[in-house]
Amino acid sequence: MRVNLITLGVADVAAATAFYERLGWRKSSASNADVTFFHSSGSVLGLYGRAALAEDAHVPDSEPGFSGVALARNFPSEAEVDAAFAHAVQCGATPVKSPQKVFWGGYSGYIADPDGHLWEYAHNPLMPLDDQGRMTLPE
Amino acid sequence: MRVNLITLGVADVAAATAFYERLGWRKSSASNADVTFFHSSGSVLGLYGRAALAEDAHVPDSEPGFSGVALARNFPSEAEVDAAFAHAVQCGATPVKSPQKVFWGGYSGYIADPDGHLWEYAHNPLMPLDDQGRMTLPE
Repeated sequence: MRVNLITLGVADVAAATAFYERLGWRKSSASNADVTFFHSSGSVLGLYGRAALAEDAHVPDSEPGFSGVALARNFPSEAEVDAAFAHAVQCGATPVKSPQKVFWGGYSGYIADPDGHLWEYAHNPLMPLDDQGRMTLPE
Repeated sequence: MRVNLITLGVADVAAATAFYERLGWRKSSASNADVTFFHSSGSVLGLYGRAALAEDAHVPDSEPGFSGVALARNFPSEAEVDAAFAHAVQCGATPVKSPQKVFWGGYSGYIADPDGHLWEYAHNPLMPLDDQGRMTLPE
């Protein structure tokens, strides 16, 4: 089983695309003015207009609040979490929770992208990254 | 770049876990009463209490509305979309948009999980799946 594509609904596809490119995401040539697809070694990341996404799914749009979804990037060390977090803020992300030791034994912070989508930046010593950067889940 | 983990905030972790297990997702032994991690060949899928997720991220919880996020599973054929969609509904998903031909040249429908998280079930002939089930994005 896999998630093939994660689509984030955004107010301005061009502005959100520029933000993610500053973070280091690389755009596929399949992208156009309405939709962006970023290369990923996990699930593909897409950007699409928020209203268009609601319309595509046949659901009513609503005021953005807490989405109930968090995406996470994991790093091999606390220092790399700090560096990536600082870089994201330089790129225009909103710092939401500074990286800190957390109760489950790891180190984690959160940023919000320009549309409020939450990204956790974490180091999880209990699920080390393999040589392809994947979290190692116990069976 | 990769998304390591996609966490969905849910009202009842046990009920949501049972739903995803019926769909065929396989739970890691790292799961406990508060959090579930599902094995995935893409980004790991996690379930966590919605209020706990908001608290972890230091953001206010809000009434669930349109999350602005859609996750997608892609299938090699329209028939497989139909079969997976029907199976999801049998497993307790809410059918939101029946699978149908869509403007971008594919075939797509949406279900909602018990917490309203949207999943697109799609066949995309423009981005065929490779032998590991990954969407092939043009450079």
